[in-house]
Amino acid sequence: MSDNRIYRTRSLGIPAAGLKDQYSDGTAAHLWELYIGDKSQRTAVYRKFITDQLKARNCITVLDVACGTGIDSVMLLEEGFRLTSVDLSDKMLKYALKTRWKRRKEPAFDAWEIEEANWMTLMEDIDGKEQFDAVICLGNSFAHLPNEECDFANQRLALSNFCAMVKPGGVLLIDHRNYDDILDRGTAPTRNIYYNSEHVESIITSVVVTEGTPVLVTLDYVIKLDGDKDLRDDTDSERAKRGRLQKVTQNKFRLSYFPHRLDSFTSLLRETFGPEAQHSVYGDFQPLGHIARPAFYIHLIEKPAR
Amino acid sequence: MSDNRIYRTRSLGIPAAGLKDQYSDGTAAHLWELYIGDKSQRTAVYRKFITDQLKARNCITVLDVACGTGIDSVMLLEEGFRLTSVDLSDKMLKYALKTRWKRRKEPAFDAWEIEEANWMTLMEDIDGKEQFDAVICLGNSFAHLPNEECDFANQRLALSNFCAMVKPGGVLLIDHRNYDDILDRGTAPTRNIYYNSEHVESIITSVVVTEGTPVLVTLDYVIKLDGDKDLRDDTDSERAKRGRLQKVTQNKFRLSYFPHRLDSFTSLLRETFGPEAQHSVYGDFQPLGHIARPAFYIHLIEKPAR
Amino acid sequence: MSDNRIYRTRSLGIPAAGLKDQYSDGTAAHLWELYIGDKSQRTAVYRKFITDQLKARNCITVLDVACGTGIDSVMLLEEGFRLTSVDLSDKMLKYALKTRWKRRKEPAFDAWEIEEANWMTLMEDIDGKEQFDAVICLGNSFAHLPNEECDFANQRLALSNFCAMVKPGGVLLIDHRNYDDILDRGTAPTRNIYYNSEHVESIITSVVVTEGTPVLVTLDYVIKLDGDKDLRDDTDSERAKRGRLQKVTQNKFRLSYFPHRLDSFTSLLRETFGPEAQHSVYGDFQPLGHIARPAFYIHLIEKPAR
Amino acid sequence: MSDNRIYRTRSLGIPAAGLKDQYSDGTAAHLWELYIGDKSQRTAVYRKFITDQLKARNCITVLDVACGTGIDSVMLLEEGFRLTSVDLSDKMLKYALKTRWKRRKEPAFDAWEIEEANWMTLMEDIDGKEQFDAVICLGNSFAHLPNEECDFANQRLALSNFCAMVKPGGVLLIDHRNYDDILDRGTAPTRNIYYNSEHVESIITSVVVTEGTPVLVTLDYVIKLDGDKDLRDDTDSERAKRGRLQKVTQNKFRLSYFPHRLDSFTSLLRETFGPEAQHSVYGDFQPLGHIARPAFYIHLIEKPAR
Repeated sequence: MSDNRIYRTRSLGIPAAGLKDQYSDGTAAHLWELYIGDKSQRTAVYRKFITDQLKARNCITVLDVACGTGIDSVMLLEEGFRLTSVDLSDKMLKYALKTRWKRRKEPAFDAWEIEEANWMTLMEDIDGKEQFDAVICLGNSFAHLPNEECDFANQRLALSNFCAMVKPGGVLLIDHRNYDDILDRGTAPTRNIYYNSEHVESIITSVVVTEGTPVLVTLDYVIKLDGDKDLRDDTDSERAKRGRLQKVTQNKFRLSYFPHRLDSFTSLLRETFGPEAQHSVYGDFQPLGHIARPAFYIHLIEKPAR
Repeated sequence: MSDNRIYRTRSLGIPAAGLKDQYSDGTAAHLWELYIGDKSQRTAVYRKFITDQLKARNCITVLDVACGTGIDSVMLLEEGFRLTSVDLSDKMLKYALKTRWKRRKEPAFDAWEIEEANWMTLMEDIDGKEQFDAVICLGNSFAHLPNEECDFANQRLALSNFCAMVKPGGVLLIDHRNYDDILDRGTAPTRNIYYNSEHVESIITSVVVTEGTPVLVTLDYVIKLDGDKDLRDDTDSERAKRGRLQKVTQNKFRLSYFPHRLDSFTSLLRETFGPEAQHSVYGDFQPLGHIARPAFYIHLIEKPAR
Repeated sequence: MSDNRIYRTRSLGIPAAGLKDQYSDGTAAHLWELYIGDKSQRTAVYRKFITDQLKARNCITVLDVACGTGIDSVMLLEEGFRLTSVDLSDKMLKYALKTRWKRRKEPAFDAWEIEEANWMTLMEDIDGKEQFDAVICLGNSFAHLPNEECDFANQRLALSNFCAMVKPGGVLLIDHRNYDDILDRGTAPTRNIYYNSEHVESIITSVVVTEGTPVLVTLDYVIKLDGDKDLRDDTDSERAKRGRLQKVTQNKFRLSYFPHRLDSFTSLLRETFGPEAQHSVYGDFQPLGHIARPAFYIHLIEKPAR
Repeated sequence: MSDNRIYRTRSLGIPAAGLKDQYSDGTAAHLWELYIGDKSQRTAVYRKFITDQLKARNCITVLDVACGTGIDSVMLLEEGFRLTSVDLSDKMLKYALKTRWKRRKEPAFDAWEIEEANWMTLMEDIDGKEQFDAVICLGNSFAHLPNEECDFANQRLALSNFCAMVKPGGVLLIDHRNYDDILDRGTAPTRNIYYNSEHVESIITSVVVTEGTPVLVTLDYVIKLDGDKDLRDDTDSERAKRGRLQKVTQNKFRLSYFPHRLDSFTSLLRETFGPEAQHSVYGDFQPLGHIARPAFYIHLIEKPAR
């Protein structure tokens, strides 16, 4: 992260190979809090969409497989869902755990399960006996999963593990950036449905193209650090604020993604859930076609009832 | 840690220099849980000593500045003290946080404050307004603090920060291994007052001696991993156990210490707390002289009332 | 080189930044000997072109600023030129030095000057008092020079240093791969005018594209190691052969390039040598247009006589 | 070398383990040239001793197995011996190769063989058919060889390879610092029979003692860089001097040694050469006892004639 000349893949899901968690130095996790902006403002954009979709299917239990600092999970807890939230990165989970602690007197938060887990061994990491009404994987998280051999083997295993955690009749919500647009234009759109933060100064897009095929998209985020108020990290307990914040000196982080085109990702999903599965796609939470160049695609796919 | 040919110092307290937390890869934290053995058995050894000392002084609030996975703090919470616990290593704190969460319905644990903090900036990291009846720094933690220039500047700053957190009339409990014995004999005693674990296969002692002066003591711990039962990590929630444990493959870790001789450490303490301060030393929790070659020295020093 | 997931820039010419010589582990240098194939066969392809060009201009003294293992310099020595040869990489120079030693009884080799030098400090590194009838920079070497700020500052400084080493009326020969073709098609041509080796199993092309602009081309070379005969490293002295060769286990290396389009490189050259300078370009040593998609462009630019 | 907090072993002789040549960054090699001081002054100290010993045994061919920058080999070439010189470090050999090139018109230098070689595979690396009248291994080089398992396996293999290169009736000259003295006192003597350089500002000695046994001695050399004259690197050709020298900014290097006590090293030698072998030891080139605390011990051991 400190060496901008290095473009590398991410560790998520490949612990056997000894790769590193992209978030392991804690910089991304901290800046992420600034990046995603005001949380209630952020989730307002899609709170209605997601809760409507889940409530229309009578979902109560939700597994958030990429909870990060917990933003989506908190939103759903506030909407009355019962959450189990996992992430590979303990640096990200620290923020979710702090939020859970601060709000532990609220019954939904008292019942919130949070664990470290790896998509490649998901059932083992969370014991795997229980299934959920819904599994969610949002915020462009899935694209962190490496596709090193260009055969989508990791992707197939992860999706199959997600599917295994969904009850028959339940649903998977999963999204990815509009990589068709990024790859065709060479730059990520500045607009982000998830993150309306005024802190984002710029996002620089790099694409690694091997033998004509895009294999890696790297986004370099530059965050504006305007002053004390903006530096506030609201998951910190009050007493930790002053000291903790002074440690922020870095205003950049780099995240790498394995890009998915809409067509090929749809095929992967259908292959995993079977030909019977109902599948629909939204662009920035609108039906396809409503928005000319959506920044994100959101997939809903139902696991057929037995 | 993976390269046994490297002897290096530890990061604690020198964030400016960009050093790394010795515990940052999580291996030591995990194995530590095995190393220290059965917790109630462990603390039995000195539970009475410490609680007697604190109760005799009417201490209620305690700051544990090296709480690690939380073993001493939990013991004191169970004995009715009010705890604020800090550590530099978030990998160690993960275990303390899990324990707090599991026991949150007990009022003492509900009130337990846990924070990341650095001894060099202790007042800022925990806000510094409050003072405590007692500050404890146990388990040979203080010796992790580097003494790179051999001038004890870090040690003076840390002790002065500890002192600042003690109420007038309060007390600091701080220990260190019997380095006089280690340095004179070249090997650490196998007996450990803190850690009676049957999991310890061996501890190999290395001493770096520069121009005749011992500057670094490195202990290589080898842990026996006997089977499923022994691999149980009891701070994990039940559902995480199966998957998490399979990740344990490493059975060694290395920790480095800057050794303190009894005389010079006593001088440092007196210099910090002033000539009026009451100071006493124990060997393995017994008055000096009761045990021929104690493994640890425990210092109690009172901050003079105004 | 061992981690295929890392795409990085090369050190050449940026010693201040502490970057590493891409050839510093010696693997590339060794495999290079295999890659470029039979040397007399190799140079046959362009020996006539280059010697004709130099002789037509009455050149006698030549500075080879990217001599590597010495292949072009040896060719010119054999043709009667007087050579000074430099390279940044001492791992590459080892091979040139061995060749010079083996052939030291030939007067041209006895007079051959070989030095380490950095293009950024070229005049200082080779003392800079002497000028040469010709400066050559062949084999796609110039594209190793990083262009990190995308402002071609390094390129301008290097070309200006090359120009300073050319006598008024002398000539610079410099080449680069046909990056227009590589960038437009996403793959490097398999045909290589310089390297006809049967040892090349494959070359995998990766392009890093930042905000729509190609900034780095990485070529992964896979070399066939067929057996003892092919493993022969003919610059080794006889007695070293057996032991040395057994150390070859790696059959891959990665080199990174900062791509130059024909137009922009031409502009850089003209800017450096001034509007009076005669400039011509060849495709694979033929006049432009003779070969449909040349693999290399070779530039000749004359420094105006005073 | 840049991180003074790291004490590590050296790679010499363990290429399989992927260890690094301690000299591979070139800093030690360059500073070595300054450290060892004026070469003719240096060798004056022991030139007579070594040449007398070799001539007394009618030695003509000599294998220098740790030639480094070539200082001892050059001394023997000047005395009329026929030299084959090897070293593991190509950064050190660069200086020997330069010297050979500069003096190539002298017949002894024209015949000088120089190769990279590893003591563990010595016969293969130098072909092994020829044997020599004498093998020399001077300048405390042998102590670079790691003894990681503390079983002297590497040492036995290296000595056995040295022995194999000696003709029956020939001799091995090998030295080591007086580690008895260093280990007993904790500091290396400032006096050095080999290196009388005025450039040595200080040598800091560190000893790693594991379970009471000294396993590693680390010497940190600080070199005085007084000005242009002192920076002269006399193996560089004239034209390279100005540029090359400006790159010297580092004035420290660290070398690590596996210490040998006189008794145990003597046993190793006798074990290798057999009970019949004549063995004698000198302290600083004087018979034992003449100098109270010699800095070096020099062993001569003869391989029994068949």
